[in-house]
Amino acid sequence: MKEREQIVIVGAGFGGLWAARALARAPVTVTLVDKNNYHGFWPLLYQVAAAELEAEQIGYPIRRILRSRRNVSFVLGRVEELDLQAKTLRTESQTMSYDYLILALGSSSTFFNIPGADTYTFPLKTMEDGIALRNHILRCFEMAAQEPNAAERQRLLTFVVVGGGPTGVEYAGALAELIYGPLAKDYRDLDVTEVSLVLVEMGGRLLAGMPEKLGRYAEARLRKMGVQLFLETAVTEVTADHVCFQNGSGLPTRSVVWTAGVRGHPLAERWGLPVGRDGRVAVAPTLQLPGEPNVYIIGDMAAFAGEDGRPLPMLAPVAMQQGSHAAANIRRQIAGQEPEPFRYFDKGTMATIGRSAAVARLAGVSFTGFIAWIVWLVVHLFQLIGYRHRLVVLINWAWSYLFFERAVRLILPVGRGRRDAPEESVPYG
Amino acid sequence: MKEREQIVIVGAGFGGLWAARALARAPVTVTLVDKNNYHGFWPLLYQVAAAELEAEQIGYPIRRILRSRRNVSFVLGRVEELDLQAKTLRTESQTMSYDYLILALGSSSTFFNIPGADTYTFPLKTMEDGIALRNHILRCFEMAAQEPNAAERQRLLTFVVVGGGPTGVEYAGALAELIYGPLAKDYRDLDVTEVSLVLVEMGGRLLAGMPEKLGRYAEARLRKMGVQLFLETAVTEVTADHVCFQNGSGLPTRSVVWTAGVRGHPLAERWGLPVGRDGRVAVAPTLQLPGEPNVYIIGDMAAFAGEDGRPLPMLAPVAMQQGSHAAANIRRQIAGQEPEPFRYFDKGTMATIGRSAAVARLAGVSFTGFIAWIVWLVVHLFQLIGYRHRLVVLINWAWSYLFFERAVRLILPVGRGRRDAPEESVPYG
Repeated sequence: MKEREQIVIVGAGFGGLWAARALARAPVTVTLVDKNNYHGFWPLLYQVAAAELEAEQIGYPIRRILRSRRNVSFVLGRVEELDLQAKTLRTESQTMSYDYLILALGSSSTFFNIPGADTYTFPLKTMEDGIALRNHILRCFEMAAQEPNAAERQRLLTFVVVGGGPTGVEYAGALAELIYGPLAKDYRDLDVTEVSLVLVEMGGRLLAGMPEKLGRYAEARLRKMGVQLFLETAVTEVTADHVCFQNGSGLPTRSVVWTAGVRGHPLAERWGLPVGRDGRVAVAPTLQLPGEPNVYIIGDMAAFAGEDGRPLPMLAPVAMQQGSHAAANIRRQIAGQEPEPFRYFDKGTMATIGRSAAVARLAGVSFTGFIAWIVWLVVHLFQLIGYRHRLVVLINWAWSYLFFERAVRLILPVGRGRRDAPEESVPYG
Repeated sequence: MKEREQIVIVGAGFGGLWAARALARAPVTVTLVDKNNYHGFWPLLYQVAAAELEAEQIGYPIRRILRSRRNVSFVLGRVEELDLQAKTLRTESQTMSYDYLILALGSSSTFFNIPGADTYTFPLKTMEDGIALRNHILRCFEMAAQEPNAAERQRLLTFVVVGGGPTGVEYAGALAELIYGPLAKDYRDLDVTEVSLVLVEMGGRLLAGMPEKLGRYAEARLRKMGVQLFLETAVTEVTADHVCFQNGSGLPTRSVVWTAGVRGHPLAERWGLPVGRDGRVAVAPTLQLPGEPNVYIIGDMAAFAGEDGRPLPMLAPVAMQQGSHAAANIRRQIAGQEPEPFRYFDKGTMATIGRSAAVARLAGVSFTGFIAWIVWLVVHLFQLIGYRHRLVVLINWAWSYLFFERAVRLILPVGRGRRDAPEESVPYG
């Protein structure tokens, strides 16, 4: 009999990392696998895309986090194959065996088979997405500044955000502040009235997952900030320079940001796991994969029915709590006990819209405005890992607030290094 | 007669930017052209490649600098054609006319026709180079951590810096501190004695442009930090996984950093300007292009004979002083006066080697060690543009110094954004 149980965790997001932390110093050997060498603080990714934060400020090196956790090691790699029978997992460079497996691969964008959407929109899921979108927005302004044709100039200055959930609302607000603030000052020769900033939502209101009062507040606030709202509007096609809506109208634009659809990670389906229509794996109340007591699935990847019978939302707190719970259940199993069912403790949800404006539902109470914004700032700042990260993010936020500036405005596509290096492929969807 | 003279400046490095600043508020119209939308503080680029600073911290948006300078506008673009007869300049998107032209395109790496050098080495000239090199170093460690074959592991952990000038010395020192500090702690399972860090210099000593005492100090210091010095060693070939030297020896490595050769910008030669063997344009004492009184060439691009008859070194202070001088000469010409000859005021040179260790020659006095290091820190911090940049750089430096950490350790190749976007081409050489 071998000395220590081998636990493999795939994915170092909130779910996987919290599981790894909960297993540190337990009498087990833990291997954490991720395709990136950093843990991303994705709730602030939209600020990378809005030139407010640098990628480095929302990414924290995984090995730094694990340094003091001697029984946890890290492997950089993409997981390709899973063999439930043999209890092995294969990355592009190695095969690893597990006694217990925690899958926390996260989610991916989905485009509902809308023609052109997967090719011509900018998703906002990965660090690469955030930087590419920032580069694109800034480049549109540079091109517009050199464009003599008025129609083409307006096309370059039309920005369409699809999806009225928290990400769409937060990004539309951040983009409005970027454009009507520092960019309006930087591009003196551009007429800011040529800019169109549109938020498109299929449903009748914004922030459908929050109380109606908060959605209405977000609408009023975004309108005041210069964002046009197209509610009850479905996108039917996206081309390289146009977006079409179901009502027959459309907009000439080179910039369609896609925050409308999220589904479970595509590997779940490829591996034949029992996925629902949203691509998420239906897990047992204990977070185990049905029929596989040694495999746990957590976070965005899992469909776990909440108290109202609907799957829990894809949120960081859900993933964190499930990560800790799966770790605790594995420790119970190793100790010969039964795993216990998971229960989500909902502390509430928040979204920021802009300067001094946010919405929050905490402990059943909804509130908006300056106080919600301060709460949002404090909560996010304290959730960041590392004191230096917190300090630098605080400085960037303070700079934005005090001077109406944005810290990061470099157009910076990154090279391949050596000329013979393979082109980096960027995962989408 | 038109109202205002049109002045076009190509390049927003130290030369071009200082020229633009000196022409602000003069009764002229200035257009500054650059292929990037930011001014790069290149003396600190090696720290980006050593995971110490984020790109954003050494790049400052050009439009932000020009915002209060109403007569200076910015055009993002690559200059392709120059027509001295017609006094026009063409970028990929437009043609512009000038009355006076300042060319400040900078320099490029040169590989002396050494087989494989241009393909298989990592240059350190652009922001993209710096980020790609950082990604590569970190990826080598991740690959080594998964590599069972000892020979291949050592190959992955062998880092060769070619060139014993300031950039090579500074990067070798920064890399030693990165590897033997935070990386040694992060990669617990790697044996740090498998790491080889080599600085290769063709001449007999380091820092040939500085007094011998300083070169010797740098040698002793680097050796103490774990850097092997290969002096009087010429590189004869570089392949994907090997570097060969003239003495018949070689090293298996995937990481050859090229800081050995710099020459004038290749466009000078392509445009038929009178370039020397080093690709720099021989300019008149007034910095004018001989025979073209309305064209000035400054900075790395120009070969200007110093007091000792040799061309001035390619350094930021030379470019800054020449930028201001060219601007002043143009104002003289417009006022009907004769342009005056340039004189370089040499305040000295400095290079940092590592923690509490630098070399400096200031006002004719050479000194080394802690005091030189403090002077280096203060001078570089104050030369950065913008208070936020200074503050964040200071925080990163303090973190490194106090906690033996490095701030930026993300492997982050950046994507193309929309799937239909053209692949970014990265300029080398």
